[in-house]
Amino acid sequence: MVRWKHMVEHISPAVRAAHERGKIQVIPMRPLENMEDLACIYTPGVAEVSRAIAADPSLARRYTIAGHTVAVISDGTAVLGLGNIGAAAALPVMEGKCAIFKRFAGLDAIPLVLNTQDPDTIIRVVRAIAPGFAAINLEDIAAPHCFAVEAALQDLGIPVMHDDQHGTAIVVLAALTNACRVTERKLENLRVVISGAGAAGIAVAKLLTPLVGDVALLDSKGALCDARGDLEGAKRTVLGKLRTKNRCGSLADVICGADAFVGVSQPGVLTPDMVRSMAADPIVLALANPTPEIMPDAAHAAGAAVVATGRSDFPNQVNNALAYPGVFRGAIEARAPQITDAMKYAAAAAIAALVPSPTPHCIVPAIFDDRVVPAVAHAVHSAYQHAKKVAVATI
Amino acid sequence: MVRWKHMVEHISPAVRAAHERGKIQVIPMRPLENMEDLACIYTPGVAEVSRAIAADPSLARRYTIAGHTVAVISDGTAVLGLGNIGAAAALPVMEGKCAIFKRFAGLDAIPLVLNTQDPDTIIRVVRAIAPGFAAINLEDIAAPHCFAVEAALQDLGIPVMHDDQHGTAIVVLAALTNACRVTERKLENLRVVISGAGAAGIAVAKLLTPLVGDVALLDSKGALCDARGDLEGAKRTVLGKLRTKNRCGSLADVICGADAFVGVSQPGVLTPDMVRSMAADPIVLALANPTPEIMPDAAHAAGAAVVATGRSDFPNQVNNALAYPGVFRGAIEARAPQITDAMKYAAAAAIAALVPSPTPHCIVPAIFDDRVVPAVAHAVHSAYQHAKKVAVATI
Repeated sequence: MVRWKHMVEHISPAVRAAHERGKIQVIPMRPLENMEDLACIYTPGVAEVSRAIAADPSLARRYTIAGHTVAVISDGTAVLGLGNIGAAAALPVMEGKCAIFKRFAGLDAIPLVLNTQDPDTIIRVVRAIAPGFAAINLEDIAAPHCFAVEAALQDLGIPVMHDDQHGTAIVVLAALTNACRVTERKLENLRVVISGAGAAGIAVAKLLTPLVGDVALLDSKGALCDARGDLEGAKRTVLGKLRTKNRCGSLADVICGADAFVGVSQPGVLTPDMVRSMAADPIVLALANPTPEIMPDAAHAAGAAVVATGRSDFPNQVNNALAYPGVFRGAIEARAPQITDAMKYAAAAAIAALVPSPTPHCIVPAIFDDRVVPAVAHAVHSAYQHAKKVAVATI
Repeated sequence: MVRWKHMVEHISPAVRAAHERGKIQVIPMRPLENMEDLACIYTPGVAEVSRAIAADPSLARRYTIAGHTVAVISDGTAVLGLGNIGAAAALPVMEGKCAIFKRFAGLDAIPLVLNTQDPDTIIRVVRAIAPGFAAINLEDIAAPHCFAVEAALQDLGIPVMHDDQHGTAIVVLAALTNACRVTERKLENLRVVISGAGAAGIAVAKLLTPLVGDVALLDSKGALCDARGDLEGAKRTVLGKLRTKNRCGSLADVICGADAFVGVSQPGVLTPDMVRSMAADPIVLALANPTPEIMPDAAHAAGAAVVATGRSDFPNQVNNALAYPGVFRGAIEARAPQITDAMKYAAAAAIAALVPSPTPHCIVPAIFDDRVVPAVAHAVHSAYQHAKKVAVATI
């Protein structure tokens, strides 16, 4: 912590100005200028609405903010690349996310940062506050707790999604889809190596496995494989589900001959020599933020055909913001009780489809491309409707 | 519940229109139109702010919404006059309160309605979400749980106030102060009868007791007195604290000879005969909503000198909205860790002082009087500063 002391002096002036008093505000939707206004939106008028909702709770969706408001919830344990910095320090990130929700998806969003890192308490808190929300975006909660928290909340009746996992996985899949088109590969033949077995890495591995020929997943000790005696919990579970050749060894061992690298780990772990050991025309998604697993120029110099990072100052920005605004909007519009894998695949396909002729320097659309959120929302909404129809037809 | 079925048909058109999609929205404070904006308010820029707060948590007040945002929290157990209607049905009321906070006090406020009525869980939830807020407004939580919940949260380091208790008590004290001036009485000689020993009644009794000559408090079974064997919890505690002649009996018994009636109970409980049995020129604050304990015309016909209700369509509207916006604003500005009795007395005095020449039909300022919130906030802020100076001087 010592190295952050007096860090306030290191906030650049533009960032400082943009954060004064926070980045969102709550404003009334109706005029409130006289007693008639007050009688309408507060007592006695509001009692008519409260009575109606008490009689028919489904009316809350129409007559309150609960129909279109997302809770953005974090315990501050895995914030950006900063790690476990706690609730208060996580709040600026959650506010930013709420601003993005409104700007890109027209959804109201409220940040809640929690003074607890106990998964049972987090679950209890989310259950308690749920009646006021249309969906729950879990954010920056570290593995392995993030898995237990998300799983326990799937019966809430509203979508609950840990974005660090699934938002990342959706955008990675979209990027790989178009990178395959650029390099004339097929996903089902692809050999992918994922560096990082935290929330994002595990979710990427799970989402890719049904589509991709071979997925290896590595943590800081090397590839997850049956020979590893130290694996438990989510790592053990995901290993059982991977469609993998069960390769063991270090990243240098496993990357050899691979078609694609997906980095959700640490700066600099992918060396030019490793890139040179990959299959011809390799795909490199180096998504560690702000410093990627390999810098794009180094990756290209070592022969990478397509390189993506999480950064806005290089081509191919693979960023969750391409996914989550549309995913939540589509799920809320569909009144889906969960965000299923089918909805995630639909979202990834919709993002990829927005770049009909991908090139090495353009495999995903820009975040500010106005088509992204409507396309993702429509795809997610349709995927849910389709699954519902299939379910009804089956019964 | 059956009598509320299809109540949606009974929402009047104006109220319905005012509640469509809820009554508040969350909007970004900064432009978000290009990658530069995004890099400033989100990654990588936001990391500078998060790091600074991690190093010095006090910076959260300046660089996040936590410095000026109030959580308005309800479990839906005592909503308006509607009773225990649950979380979803309480949300329109909480949204209204949030709109009022912004309009009158410039404070952002976020409604949280809880899917629990267990006080321990409510306490745990409020503790968990506290890092994102400058203050907690507990709202429409029924007695006796409201007392335990509020008391347990006084160590949070930010003001936590159950408005149904203290907002009401502050405005009642302001109204009584000026009603005494109109009727040429002194508070310290006043004999007050409070009908209703729920959250509001008990708080009014507690706040009046140090200032008022004689306070009797009645629940639905009659006056709280030592002869009652059925009293426990908050009722037993408040009885021990009242400066009372320990009168027993019904409202008809106890009201006889009283100077002032404060109703926070049920429609119609105060009859004209009871008013006639009071001291000369009696004061009647009949605050049950929307139908008061006695209608103003009936009270005046029976000899009441000053009559107030909670309604906007009669003179002398005694409404919490006169108190809570300024109380929270002042407490937040002062960075007070609690809202003390001294701050409540200062708020009541400030409200009363805004009507320098009270008349029977004007004992409190109007809610839309622009002077109210600044005056209350200043008084509360000063009271906290004064107490702090005294404390420092004592040490």
